[in-house]
Amino acid sequence: MIASRPYDATPARRIAFIGLGTMGAPMAAHLARAGHAVTVYNRTAAKAQAWAAEFGGRVALSPAEAAEGADLVITCVGNDDDLRQVCVGPDGAFQRMPAGAVLVDHTTTSAQVARELAQQASNQGLHFIDAPVSGGNLGAINGVLTVMCGGESDAFDRIRPVVMAYARAVTLLGEAGAGQLAKMVNQISVAGLLQGLAEALAFGQKAGLDMHKVLEVISQGAATSWQMQNRGPTMIDDRFDFGFAVDWMRKDLGLCLDEARRQGATLPTTALIDQFYADIQAQGGGRWDTSSLIRRLR
Amino acid sequence: MIASRPYDATPARRIAFIGLGTMGAPMAAHLARAGHAVTVYNRTAAKAQAWAAEFGGRVALSPAEAAEGADLVITCVGNDDDLRQVCVGPDGAFQRMPAGAVLVDHTTTSAQVARELAQQASNQGLHFIDAPVSGGNLGAINGVLTVMCGGESDAFDRIRPVVMAYARAVTLLGEAGAGQLAKMVNQISVAGLLQGLAEALAFGQKAGLDMHKVLEVISQGAATSWQMQNRGPTMIDDRFDFGFAVDWMRKDLGLCLDEARRQGATLPTTALIDQFYADIQAQGGGRWDTSSLIRRLR
Repeated sequence: MIASRPYDATPARRIAFIGLGTMGAPMAAHLARAGHAVTVYNRTAAKAQAWAAEFGGRVALSPAEAAEGADLVITCVGNDDDLRQVCVGPDGAFQRMPAGAVLVDHTTTSAQVARELAQQASNQGLHFIDAPVSGGNLGAINGVLTVMCGGESDAFDRIRPVVMAYARAVTLLGEAGAGQLAKMVNQISVAGLLQGLAEALAFGQKAGLDMHKVLEVISQGAATSWQMQNRGPTMIDDRFDFGFAVDWMRKDLGLCLDEARRQGATLPTTALIDQFYADIQAQGGGRWDTSSLIRRLR
Repeated sequence: MIASRPYDATPARRIAFIGLGTMGAPMAAHLARAGHAVTVYNRTAAKAQAWAAEFGGRVALSPAEAAEGADLVITCVGNDDDLRQVCVGPDGAFQRMPAGAVLVDHTTTSAQVARELAQQASNQGLHFIDAPVSGGNLGAINGVLTVMCGGESDAFDRIRPVVMAYARAVTLLGEAGAGQLAKMVNQISVAGLLQGLAEALAFGQKAGLDMHKVLEVISQGAATSWQMQNRGPTMIDDRFDFGFAVDWMRKDLGLCLDEARRQGATLPTTALIDQFYADIQAQGGGRWDTSSLIRRLR
């Protein structure tokens, strides 16, 4: 399931990896296979044990223990609160990271918590890079994620070659929080695009068109998108048991809407689509792929 | 400005071309250069004279006169009423088309008028193919339009090789009206996509991100689209003096919303975006490119 070690492998490092979920587990596996010494921590310990049995890393009992002696700490957890807990909680990584070490966070969070933790890291002689990803579980498994970073360029330069073990592109987009803001730009784009696609496909189906044939034609032109090409056919066939879950999309859109409120930015259709996703959750579709917006329209 | 004659050129035909606007003029030019005998009609006669002077066709004084003796009549006019006028008006093409001739309509119209004219054609021993296009003025000039057709397959087979003179793809999608319905699917997709992109880019600009850099990154992933790649950069730079005009998009969305009402289909964001385009018109932006939705958000 895991692609082989990249050609441009970096010197081995001591890496702590915190959070072995759907994204974290394959990312950490890429690091182990690239020859790094990986120590893992996971809230549900059994997952960490299973990961270590398969990939040969060491298991720590707390984020602090994992971080001890690590050049680089990588986190991939659920949300702002989880991230605060594993960084600056009583057993958080910041307690024992060596001076000058870098923490790279792949969680999708608010820009605020990224700025707050970058400041805290700086106060302690550490570094923090916010680095949310896009590409989903398949992107993690195949090592082709897109990583959007915010932080200091020196620390970024040190972590980039390591992160490339599971990424197609790792780009610094600005100061602390810029990675999270770029991820929000990505999610806002996707939400509008998917709702437009859902309305279009449901409309065409009601009109009695052969929608697979119509998609084939219109996906050659100015209406085309990754979502149209990759999710259009499964939307037509009413299949949503894969992909990026509605529950996670709602979390991300919540972050976008909060940030927009702070900035005075206007997100009229994004706000509406967030409510449509609430409908899908109420229908029991929290685990369906985000393209399930079309189910509201049938 | 006009690409050379396609390799798979068809035997020369007698063609009437009605409507020499931004789209029609370059389409008709491709036909003339492919060696067909083209007779043109345009409501503003001066345009027809200028076209004939440049491309060597004959000018008719009415659609009926243009249609006389033509194997194939092609129309590309403004809206449902214009189309009715040039087909079944007192001087309309149907008056003098030879028995068995085909009328191909490239106007974006309602599916209803397409069905009505197909029926009328059939009653008179003629054929009607609805064939709206996507690809815009540049697509017409470069001869790479996408043509979505509805009608009888025999008539379609006869016109397809001729229409290929200015198209990349010419596809039959069903009975009369199916081409128009497919075009509506296309426009609904584009509207949602553009509004999502507009909200995303305006948000990122307010957040102070280097949006050209962010676009470069996110257009590699699951948020990508033709519009993001081709209109994203100009939206960031606030340039809208090209492309597909807001006035035309409103006309198309009006057709979509009317058809949805008839079918009982739900287009919540499309309806909202249609109103946003009304705002742009009120700002004096009727001629701006459809990507100008971002101007409402600044």
